[in-house]
Amino acid sequence: MAGSTFGSIFRMTTWGESHGKGIGVVVDGCPAGVCLCEEDIQKFLNRRKPGQSRFTTPRKEADEVTILSGVFEGKTTGTPISLVVMNTDQRSHDYSEISTYYRPGHADYTFDEKYGFRDYRGGGRSSGRETIARVAAGAVAMKVLEFLGISVCAYAKEIGGIAVDESCMDLAECENNAFYMPDAKAAERVMALADQKLKEHDSIGGIVECRIDGVPAGLGEPVFDKVDANLAKAIVSIGAVKGFEVGCGFAAARSTGSQNNDVFRMKDGAVVKETNAAGGILGGMTDGDQIVFRAAFKPTPSIARPQQTVNRSGEEIEVSIKGRHDPMIVPRAVVVVECMAAAVILDELLVNMSARADRIKDFYGR
Amino acid sequence: MAGSTFGSIFRMTTWGESHGKGIGVVVDGCPAGVCLCEEDIQKFLNRRKPGQSRFTTPRKEADEVTILSGVFEGKTTGTPISLVVMNTDQRSHDYSEISTYYRPGHADYTFDEKYGFRDYRGGGRSSGRETIARVAAGAVAMKVLEFLGISVCAYAKEIGGIAVDESCMDLAECENNAFYMPDAKAAERVMALADQKLKEHDSIGGIVECRIDGVPAGLGEPVFDKVDANLAKAIVSIGAVKGFEVGCGFAAARSTGSQNNDVFRMKDGAVVKETNAAGGILGGMTDGDQIVFRAAFKPTPSIARPQQTVNRSGEEIEVSIKGRHDPMIVPRAVVVVECMAAAVILDELLVNMSARADRIKDFYGR
Amino acid sequence: MAGSTFGSIFRMTTWGESHGKGIGVVVDGCPAGVCLCEEDIQKFLNRRKPGQSRFTTPRKEADEVTILSGVFEGKTTGTPISLVVMNTDQRSHDYSEISTYYRPGHADYTFDEKYGFRDYRGGGRSSGRETIARVAAGAVAMKVLEFLGISVCAYAKEIGGIAVDESCMDLAECENNAFYMPDAKAAERVMALADQKLKEHDSIGGIVECRIDGVPAGLGEPVFDKVDANLAKAIVSIGAVKGFEVGCGFAAARSTGSQNNDVFRMKDGAVVKETNAAGGILGGMTDGDQIVFRAAFKPTPSIARPQQTVNRSGEEIEVSIKGRHDPMIVPRAVVVVECMAAAVILDELLVNMSARADRIKDFYGR
Amino acid sequence: MAGSTFGSIFRMTTWGESHGKGIGVVVDGCPAGVCLCEEDIQKFLNRRKPGQSRFTTPRKEADEVTILSGVFEGKTTGTPISLVVMNTDQRSHDYSEISTYYRPGHADYTFDEKYGFRDYRGGGRSSGRETIARVAAGAVAMKVLEFLGISVCAYAKEIGGIAVDESCMDLAECENNAFYMPDAKAAERVMALADQKLKEHDSIGGIVECRIDGVPAGLGEPVFDKVDANLAKAIVSIGAVKGFEVGCGFAAARSTGSQNNDVFRMKDGAVVKETNAAGGILGGMTDGDQIVFRAAFKPTPSIARPQQTVNRSGEEIEVSIKGRHDPMIVPRAVVVVECMAAAVILDELLVNMSARADRIKDFYGR
Repeated sequence: MAGSTFGSIFRMTTWGESHGKGIGVVVDGCPAGVCLCEEDIQKFLNRRKPGQSRFTTPRKEADEVTILSGVFEGKTTGTPISLVVMNTDQRSHDYSEISTYYRPGHADYTFDEKYGFRDYRGGGRSSGRETIARVAAGAVAMKVLEFLGISVCAYAKEIGGIAVDESCMDLAECENNAFYMPDAKAAERVMALADQKLKEHDSIGGIVECRIDGVPAGLGEPVFDKVDANLAKAIVSIGAVKGFEVGCGFAAARSTGSQNNDVFRMKDGAVVKETNAAGGILGGMTDGDQIVFRAAFKPTPSIARPQQTVNRSGEEIEVSIKGRHDPMIVPRAVVVVECMAAAVILDELLVNMSARADRIKDFYGR
Repeated sequence: MAGSTFGSIFRMTTWGESHGKGIGVVVDGCPAGVCLCEEDIQKFLNRRKPGQSRFTTPRKEADEVTILSGVFEGKTTGTPISLVVMNTDQRSHDYSEISTYYRPGHADYTFDEKYGFRDYRGGGRSSGRETIARVAAGAVAMKVLEFLGISVCAYAKEIGGIAVDESCMDLAECENNAFYMPDAKAAERVMALADQKLKEHDSIGGIVECRIDGVPAGLGEPVFDKVDANLAKAIVSIGAVKGFEVGCGFAAARSTGSQNNDVFRMKDGAVVKETNAAGGILGGMTDGDQIVFRAAFKPTPSIARPQQTVNRSGEEIEVSIKGRHDPMIVPRAVVVVECMAAAVILDELLVNMSARADRIKDFYGR
Repeated sequence: MAGSTFGSIFRMTTWGESHGKGIGVVVDGCPAGVCLCEEDIQKFLNRRKPGQSRFTTPRKEADEVTILSGVFEGKTTGTPISLVVMNTDQRSHDYSEISTYYRPGHADYTFDEKYGFRDYRGGGRSSGRETIARVAAGAVAMKVLEFLGISVCAYAKEIGGIAVDESCMDLAECENNAFYMPDAKAAERVMALADQKLKEHDSIGGIVECRIDGVPAGLGEPVFDKVDANLAKAIVSIGAVKGFEVGCGFAAARSTGSQNNDVFRMKDGAVVKETNAAGGILGGMTDGDQIVFRAAFKPTPSIARPQQTVNRSGEEIEVSIKGRHDPMIVPRAVVVVECMAAAVILDELLVNMSARADRIKDFYGR
Repeated sequence: MAGSTFGSIFRMTTWGESHGKGIGVVVDGCPAGVCLCEEDIQKFLNRRKPGQSRFTTPRKEADEVTILSGVFEGKTTGTPISLVVMNTDQRSHDYSEISTYYRPGHADYTFDEKYGFRDYRGGGRSSGRETIARVAAGAVAMKVLEFLGISVCAYAKEIGGIAVDESCMDLAECENNAFYMPDAKAAERVMALADQKLKEHDSIGGIVECRIDGVPAGLGEPVFDKVDANLAKAIVSIGAVKGFEVGCGFAAARSTGSQNNDVFRMKDGAVVKETNAAGGILGGMTDGDQIVFRAAFKPTPSIARPQQTVNRSGEEIEVSIKGRHDPMIVPRAVVVVECMAAAVILDELLVNMSARADRIKDFYGR
């Protein structure tokens, strides 16, 4: 059942393995007439590239995107946009060992169970490199959202249990530290912790938060295709995500109705909410307020310290995973969350256009 | 964009409003040859019926299901199963007031923004009664899963901040208290809290946990259609859910790789995991272990105490929501979570059948 | 894989068997704010009702539709519209014989092969009564199209080899004969032929033509979701249809490029075509001209004369199908073709709204 | 609404323009474990390559396919197979003229109406080169079908009104003439006609027939997703197709029930049909017999003789389309029909696996 396509009208179909010839995505359903060039996409890919600090894998990956179709004279044509990032680092590693056993916390075992065998080179299809395709597609969505006056912004909210201090959060700060954290002090503490974990050959997890501004009220469908339900699927489908929450999220479960209900007010002739426990979504539909959600990432499963596991022959063995791996997933995952969110919101905008008969009549000028 | 259909192969399409003629669902893609009668479905509907304790709304709702199609001589035929619950309590309430303003925490405002107007009677399409259709469809899925040796079980893990003590959890206990809680002592404390909140005209939230046993390894697709991603969408699409987590969930974000990685072992010739931080899902595919996930429910937004809001004319007003409402959603939501989970797992089982060429060849006996 | 849902944004999901409790459809994705009442749908259902002449089965079927959801204060709400026609004629026929063998030209054998057994009462799910659901859903689409200034009109083009004389075609004539034929003389000849075939206990086939006016240019997608491809699926999915063609259709295969190319001209400042060999569709997209297509219906497979076949025990037997059946399908199928076409065109209108970024920006008023 | 994806479980998503960087397809949902190499695909692409006779365009197009993902150690992995054919002939043609007007019979005008502008180089997305992607994807389906013992075979049934003589049809003959026609004499007459039409600067149409053997009974869904309905969409979505028919097709409309019903017989313990008017499909489901369908192709719209049309400024002009074009589409379309049919049938096989509960239980070994 396929499973490599995401979205209803704005749709991405991804392909590629970590150490195959390349990674790519076909973006179908992108509206015509939006300015788009490779640099628009490259700048998002650069944010997920490894090797940018000692806390990400030092592997060299150029990750240069090429637009193969769907853009003509600098504008999207409405037809599918094929984007590809060729894998440059394809020299023959020695995978003879890794091919024989199941790494704990990885999809090796489940892949074998599903398909009977797997492309074991660098994790194959379940590698983190799969997110290149998501980022490339999301960058296209981001360009359309920008044209429509909508902005999406994600950042590290918490890493290894060290959270951003919300009272002095500064988004501009994200660019100044290796963790994409909007709080310099928290980032410093994370750096110390990360250095310690690197020494211990261990890894840490964290939480990414995402905010979306400028979204009109009324997007989303009231039952299964709620905006938050679609965001939940988009975000939980990112490798290593183990939790999703919108607005007050799990904290709402410990709140009361009188605390958690956002009071409606009038402001400049418009209906607004005094607070935003809802995270910008009521009954699955956007309420015009900022959309806020969070994703919980588990620690990187690839750790250098020895681990117990089993091999394909059914023997219990001890393994040490070689190579340098990211001691945490969060910093590079921020842009992935942002891009998946952008794809969802653009899709909701397009889907919502057919909600009202009078607007359809206006649209077709009748 | 529709939005009232859920699932890939096993698909439910729901319809109906709280105070319209009825609520129903068309279950398409149910395999042929499964024994099914109305009682199989009714027993699940009875679990979500109101009026079973003083902590649920005392409204009288018979909620009797009728099978209109898709079953012949006691067995599913493979064609769509149409299920309907007629609304019996349709006497003309006075909705003149509620129709004019936006209840805080409800979808009144977003419905108006999306469609230009709304069926305001009892919440219309965004009423909790919408879940009748989910439960009816999920009950069908449950019958098929039972035939295949798979069980799904949900319960209240935490209500109003009072959590089940995992060391003495007893699922049999769920039937003995009004909260579907597997811990008698916790249930008693919840009862005291709930009584207090009723007096305060306030409401509380909580967390539902769900466990699924007997699922074969290898279900789910490695990229967008991960089992946990599909569960996330299914669960977050339930009204009032603000968060979803699988396995260790948000706690994994504060864990380390060495703690969070589940060690593989051999047991009776089979690969098993020593622990289950993963919640039975690795890389989006089932690993043969128990699937465990949780959903966070916000407090009931309908509370009797006065609240500030605005009306359709753009005036700020104070309102008191009349009628008796559930002071908490969780007890009646347990079965809804269970049923949505059942629908997802059955769908995954069906989708997975086409994963391997050799098994397809065997299937067609060639 | 389900298979009981049709459409992308405007979606119908049908259910029901010939002699089950009823036949129904859930119409999801219908825009909000369109006036709709049961009479709007009933008038289309009446056109497919049997018993209107001696050339249709004399079975009494009231076929009264009820709207169960999705309409409030006389207008569609944007949420699913559930329509049901209860089966009134459910007295216990004797199906003991028909249940044991495979009627030639029917789906009895294929149903058994697919599902292992079948609801044999009156053809079950493969009965012509299944089209009640299509007509009900199409009637809703028709109401929206009317609001948007688009009309759909089908009629019998040819029955038993007797074709309408195009030079004197008069659509008003359709109502004056039992065959829905826009040519009184042709209808008279068909009547004589039909009477003869009734005597011979045989049946005849025919061709339905459909014309759609007022469709804006640019609908449809250039590759797989061409308007004509979607119409082809919609029409060939109607029971008994064995062929579909658009514009000049099969005749185009015997034409030359110079004959078959429609010359573009200017008329009142607009681009028009001098001829319409294309049938209003170029490259899968509407060209603003009238859409014209045809469907070939086979003769009714239920004939009273003895036929050879086999039974479920694998014995060759001779059978005579009892009961009075329509000696031709075409007259009652006209409205089914019309309704399926309406559903496709409405869907194309909704899908097309997201084609251009500038129009999306205008739509959202930014 | 996207529109560049086809199929339910076995899904192709195509991209690319005639004179862009390349043409490609992502095949998702292909079962794991099937041997696949580039040569398996190339041999199908070679059949649609131009320049093979004087009756196809002499343009040089290498059309070499590369597998970018989804195959490991010579076998499909179950993950998406990305196939690409780079466009080698991208030298800068002069499109300044063609960009300004609308070619009769082409999608130039409808593209402009839909998207506001178009990639006019060589027809852009609506070029016949789009079928490269269909053939590549279909070749993968064909490899899986072969593994399952199913064969698909198409050929030219009729060109320019000259039909194959069915009494002496010989499929081996197809390879011996430029038209893929299974009748040497008919091919000779077509050659004479084609030479004449080339001199007249005109073009001709034709009919492709396709036969599929080895398909088990019971595939297809009884209502909208009938096998013939899915084939109809697949085939009519091929550019230049104006008609589709299955079995006796339009001729059935002129037949009687007693002629058109296929008698069931027993043969070697199996149910068979004496004749095959149904074309292997009854009630939308396969009956185990050979599937037979036909597609009507219009004449190539690009003809060298002068034609009247309008330009983008709304002026009526006379144009002569430069370059050498295929005087007929049929010979190169044969393989496209075959490949689309293969994709549909494979999809039906996969979809059908979940039809019966007992078989699902067997599949999962419970």
